[in-house]
Amino acid sequence: MATYYMPVKVFEETDVVRKKAGEIAKLGSKALIVTGKHSAKANGSLDDVIAALDEYNISYIHFNKIEENPLVETVMEAVDFAKNENVDFVVAIGGGSPLDAAKAIALMLKHPEEDSSYLFRAGGDDSHLPLCLIPTTCGTGSEVTGVSVLTRNDIKTKQSISFKIFGDIALLDGKYLESLSPKVLKNTAMDAFCHLVESYVNNNATIYSRIVCLDGLSSFKNVLPVVRGEKKPKLSDYFNLLRTSTYAGMAIAQTGTAIPHGLSYAFTYNLGIEHGRACGYFLAGYLKMACKKWTCLSQELSDYFKTNLNNQFSTVGEAEVNLILNTAGIASVEEFEKLYALVCEKVEVEEAKLNKELDNTVNDLFNNKAKLSVAPFQLSKEELTEIAYDISI
Amino acid sequence: MATYYMPVKVFEETDVVRKKAGEIAKLGSKALIVTGKHSAKANGSLDDVIAALDEYNISYIHFNKIEENPLVETVMEAVDFAKNENVDFVVAIGGGSPLDAAKAIALMLKHPEEDSSYLFRAGGDDSHLPLCLIPTTCGTGSEVTGVSVLTRNDIKTKQSISFKIFGDIALLDGKYLESLSPKVLKNTAMDAFCHLVESYVNNNATIYSRIVCLDGLSSFKNVLPVVRGEKKPKLSDYFNLLRTSTYAGMAIAQTGTAIPHGLSYAFTYNLGIEHGRACGYFLAGYLKMACKKWTCLSQELSDYFKTNLNNQFSTVGEAEVNLILNTAGIASVEEFEKLYALVCEKVEVEEAKLNKELDNTVNDLFNNKAKLSVAPFQLSKEELTEIAYDISI
Ligand SMILES: [Fe+2]
Ligand SMILES: [Fe+2]
Repeated sequence: MATYYMPVKVFEETDVVRKKAGEIAKLGSKALIVTGKHSAKANGSLDDVIAALDEYNISYIHFNKIEENPLVETVMEAVDFAKNENVDFVVAIGGGSPLDAAKAIALMLKHPEEDSSYLFRAGGDDSHLPLCLIPTTCGTGSEVTGVSVLTRNDIKTKQSISFKIFGDIALLDGKYLESLSPKVLKNTAMDAFCHLVESYVNNNATIYSRIVCLDGLSSFKNVLPVVRGEKKPKLSDYFNLLRTSTYAGMAIAQTGTAIPHGLSYAFTYNLGIEHGRACGYFLAGYLKMACKKWTCLSQELSDYFKTNLNNQFSTVGEAEVNLILNTAGIASVEEFEKLYALVCEKVEVEEAKLNKELDNTVNDLFNNKAKLSVAPFQLSKEELTEIAYDISI
Repeated sequence: MATYYMPVKVFEETDVVRKKAGEIAKLGSKALIVTGKHSAKANGSLDDVIAALDEYNISYIHFNKIEENPLVETVMEAVDFAKNENVDFVVAIGGGSPLDAAKAIALMLKHPEEDSSYLFRAGGDDSHLPLCLIPTTCGTGSEVTGVSVLTRNDIKTKQSISFKIFGDIALLDGKYLESLSPKVLKNTAMDAFCHLVESYVNNNATIYSRIVCLDGLSSFKNVLPVVRGEKKPKLSDYFNLLRTSTYAGMAIAQTGTAIPHGLSYAFTYNLGIEHGRACGYFLAGYLKMACKKWTCLSQELSDYFKTNLNNQFSTVGEAEVNLILNTAGIASVEEFEKLYALVCEKVEVEEAKLNKELDNTVNDLFNNKAKLSVAPFQLSKEELTEIAYDISI
């Protein structure tokens, strides 16, 4: 893994889609526009894209059936839809779902002879159609990562495709967030926050990735009053929210997610709990475990970060966890727990059913040694269970 | 200009060239190695590159004549040397000079029918041979910028080529800095510091680029005792120095340099004053002018940065200048002046000759309206003169 790699050309300003129409036009001569069912139409981004394409006389077709947690089947439906239409680039608009799906679609359109198993095959050719990514939520930062997470009904969970597919350009405009419901805004902001924290408390972390995390957490601090619901967001707040999630993406692109995300997928798949809310559910438990068990830092990180760390803490974990939270304007793990309770709806599931889900997701993650090793400390099955059950104790 | 674009894949670790030999090998089957005359041999980087290429049975030829402030003629000599040798990628090792030269060489080798005027022609095709960049000093951050500055004898100054040429990979190993003389180390660290400051006090600055500047300045703070000569550097300090200059490059890649660099080129060309020392010469003057004249910030920057700014200052400029310096562990402009005097040798040039140079460089820069507009405040000729003469007052 590279120490730092983020090849997407990012443009951020109000009305960026119209202002950078020329950058979109450079990507090709016929576009496949990929969106969800409604939001791109509702927030004005679809109209902006069409106007930008029209300005350069670029024709397009539009696939608007990407669902939340997009299915492999839906990706293949889009590929079939576009296959014989001579599209030569893809414009994706939306939250993480359309953006992630579009990466897979752009890949498969370049390999039309392959079936969907290609998505999860290691070592294949990763060439793909050029890709323009336009985020309209503020959670995953998919616009700056190579990650595409799809839902596989065959194995009943979400999984990343085997390829890193980066966009060529990403266009960020805070105005598209204005029409998000407060609930979606909060859940996606929670997702971004989890990414920033999980990327920091992460065995793959480097100095570069951790600095990106701290940058994102500072940006999160700016929007904390909005996330708490204490302040009605202004346009500049929407830009800050979007930027926070873009930093989250830059961080995750270097390290991958950690334990809370790992525990969350089945939770979303089986209980329908929103992604950010599901990840946040496991975050306090992960941080408490980090305080207890994270005792040493690589020499390199330790040399660099020791000046930032507060010596009053007894473990590296405590000092690091407090550094992260304080950078985000949160005083302690306890304060984060209050924030989570304020921001995300309580998970209301019958106890037996909830416990069964928790046990299953712990089992699955414990058997996934690669994922488990992303935590910068060893975890026994009991400790993983402790993280999973933390919130209900 | 993009808000953020830095497509180079960066790898940073001890012995990175040997450890990432496979990444080098992906670039092609016959390499042109580009270096200066001695240092790549002396610091071990050339041996590492050759061992890495040998491991993958990749043949190479070696051009070792890049001088400081490389001439267009030398670039063309390297192109002639390699032209009929079927090299299909370039590995550059060294300070900013070999790295900048290698970008131009990689471009020209892809356009063998063109003469050197192609380098400065606008709108040409920017395709170039794949490029691996290995920095062995800590000044320009050339490994992460698209910039290639060459010396043109025809117009008697340094000039950037008309193309942005990014490396494919950059390999960072602090151990190569161990053999730098204290003087070179200090001058190049001063260059990196100027880049970080000039990129921040810059009309092209965005939130992203300014955050990169602050990251770089924090990194600079870590090595301040080494730069001051108060501490004998350890390997981790060399990594911090290298990283500071890499951040400087990331920042400059977004904004370009500002007034101190603009004033410095003729100073280096005509008086032979080292690049970092020449830039630093004009920095305090630029900062003092910023304190006086920089009165307003774009709404976007102001919304984001106001939480960081100290309200005790009367102008945006004073607040921003102090934020920058404090992030680097420097208390005030006055403290920076002391640092400069400590770190860089005094410019000892006969007064009349010095004044003539200063007047000429002010004249040239004042007539270069594009460069002048990079300062985030208007500058009259008198004010530009005040900046240039500041240190001698
Ligand atoms: Fe997520
Ligand atoms: Fe420089």
